Amino acid sequence: MTQRPFNFSAGPAALPEEVLHQVAAEMLDWQGSGMSVMEMSHRGREFISIYEAAEADLRELLQVPSNFRILFMQGGGLAENAIVPLNLSRGGKVDVVVTGSWSKKSAAEARRYADVAIAADGASSRYCDIPAPGSWQLRPDAAYVHVCSNETIDGTEFHELPDLKSLGSEAPLVIDCSSHQLSRPIDWSRVGLAFGGAQKNVGPSGLTLVFVREDLLGQALPICPSAFNYQTVAEAQSMFNTPPTFGIYVAGLVFKWLKKFEYAGKQGLAAIEQRNIDKAALLYAALDGTDFYENRVAAHCRSRMNIPFYLRDESLNEAFLAGARERGLLQLKGHKSVGGMRASIYNAMPLEGVQALVTYLKDFEKRHG
Amino acid sequence: MTQRPFNFSAGPAALPEEVLHQVAAEMLDWQGSGMSVMEMSHRGREFISIYEAAEADLRELLQVPSNFRILFMQGGGLAENAIVPLNLSRGGKVDVVVTGSWSKKSAAEARRYADVAIAADGASSRYCDIPAPGSWQLRPDAAYVHVCSNETIDGTEFHELPDLKSLGSEAPLVIDCSSHQLSRPIDWSRVGLAFGGAQKNVGPSGLTLVFVREDLLGQALPICPSAFNYQTVAEAQSMFNTPPTFGIYVAGLVFKWLKKFEYAGKQGLAAIEQRNIDKAALLYAALDGTDFYENRVAAHCRSRMNIPFYLRDESLNEAFLAGARERGLLQLKGHKSVGGMRASIYNAMPLEGVQALVTYLKDFEKRHG
Repeated sequence: MTQRPFNFSAGPAALPEEVLHQVAAEMLDWQGSGMSVMEMSHRGREFISIYEAAEADLRELLQVPSNFRILFMQGGGLAENAIVPLNLSRGGKVDVVVTGSWSKKSAAEARRYADVAIAADGASSRYCDIPAPGSWQLRPDAAYVHVCSNETIDGTEFHELPDLKSLGSEAPLVIDCSSHQLSRPIDWSRVGLAFGGAQKNVGPSGLTLVFVREDLLGQALPICPSAFNYQTVAEAQSMFNTPPTFGIYVAGLVFKWLKKFEYAGKQGLAAIEQRNIDKAALLYAALDGTDFYENRVAAHCRSRMNIPFYLRDESLNEAFLAGARERGLLQLKGHKSVGGMRASIYNAMPLEGVQALVTYLKDFEKRHG
Repeated sequence: MTQRPFNFSAGPAALPEEVLHQVAAEMLDWQGSGMSVMEMSHRGREFISIYEAAEADLRELLQVPSNFRILFMQGGGLAENAIVPLNLSRGGKVDVVVTGSWSKKSAAEARRYADVAIAADGASSRYCDIPAPGSWQLRPDAAYVHVCSNETIDGTEFHELPDLKSLGSEAPLVIDCSSHQLSRPIDWSRVGLAFGGAQKNVGPSGLTLVFVREDLLGQALPICPSAFNYQTVAEAQSMFNTPPTFGIYVAGLVFKWLKKFEYAGKQGLAAIEQRNIDKAALLYAALDGTDFYENRVAAHCRSRMNIPFYLRDESLNEAFLAGARERGLLQLKGHKSVGGMRASIYNAMPLEGVQALVTYLKDFEKRHG
């Protein structure tokens, strides 16, 4: 089989090649059932077995405690920006830490349903730094505190989740972990709810994972649509409405791939985390080793997943992207709101992909520097 | 290639075999892009071309007028039960015609947002008949009138959409056409909004099609989540949030299959409609020709898509289903709320599938009658 190009898309994003092979092979007949997974009733025994395996594998991978429910929903992170306050705000106070584009959107949407205050805002650093938790203004009676634990556009990441209790808050922490979920463990002792769109590390777009602590169920506002009421969804095992069955199937294959994944003498989530650390270190070292390129994010909160960078001479941007495409390095253009370049190096990106990018960075600099 | 089983699932449901072959063949490399469709940025030129072709083909197939917007959304029919009143009710009055399980759910959900009245209710016929439009109690100031144009569980179908103007109402008609969309033309002159989950005639679950007349945009309640605000979605060409890209791709292939479809000297939607008429006639004739089986729906409103039926001796149900499975006739069990059997014979079901079912009906009766 010939080498596939390396796809640096921020999402929908690269998937493990062996998962795609299996999906193709099973397309007309899933394990002797005579049906494609797309053709199965979500209430039939075949799909139920797919669903149950996916849920169990995900719970095992992330060591999700038994007092958390895992929901397979629709609408992505942007829909969750409304669904979370509809379920958790009780119409009261919500504190949001603004660390970039995504948390800013979350705050704006929550204002439809709650009294929102910005506990901290990284604007003065142009979102190149995450305000220290000790500086956050947390209200004692907030229904929850929202953070985006990895900002896909700005390229920042919480490498340690805030311990709200130590900051004097009893509120549950809500994390939007869309763009780094399953790239590392989650410290569930610090989390009340986590959500993320699947289209980065998990599977196709149109599937959203929600992890919710059981004591937070049952508080939805009466205006919350039934299909987005966490308690309703939890009671129906994510089958109140027809779930995105094919997306759950692909996600389940990704979970199985992750469980078997080996790297540097490790296996599973620990192995993928180690590879993510190594990939990010390699790319940041290349960017930092020259003035030709620049990453502007503070070292302590640089994302392992989304690495925005700029050419000092931005008139070379088009040439850079065209040359990258010629070498099979795809979708490196930065988000339109910030410009420049962005390499998203999610779980499915092999080390070789980052090595090829680093080689290209050096070659391009040699020719144009 | 060996014969695949015939899959009578009510949804997710059978897809055209050649669509599945193409999806499998393109899984690792869509048309030389080096990417699976699942791996493409929704804002990249490759996916935009897929999206635009799907939208144009759908508009052509259903002859959607230029003053209607087509939205590709998430959440299925059950989410739309909330999304429609959030967008169209203006917090005022909504009239619902209850013809079975789905319209009953729509009425219940709309009560969260509006003053809902039941304009007519088929309960006295046990939902085996659709109340005549002339008998509907329509309020002159209703924001809209909701009907389910094909009841998937009860097996009834509107063969002519009601002309609300002739009934003295100026309100727009909203139709939930999930389980028969694309099986026949839609008389857009009688419709303000149509919605349907994809998982019957269109593609995988997790994709919802919404057709909305432009003058109905821009009226959403402030509590409507942005991701489900029709105007926001329309302005962003269905890309306010990341759309279910893979589902749109599969739907686009189904649209292309439909456009080329030939039957009885016709092509496209006219051809599939004719085959649907013939398939339904064949199955109803077989059920009506014996006392061994029974379909209870009034002849004038029998669904072409979902045909529930009962064995007079229900103690034979398990034997009937087991024998069907042996012959490759899958997912014939009726919905749990009504019991019995149900044959869903959507667009992708070939005539041969219905013929095989009719043969089995006769053989089973011979052995057990």
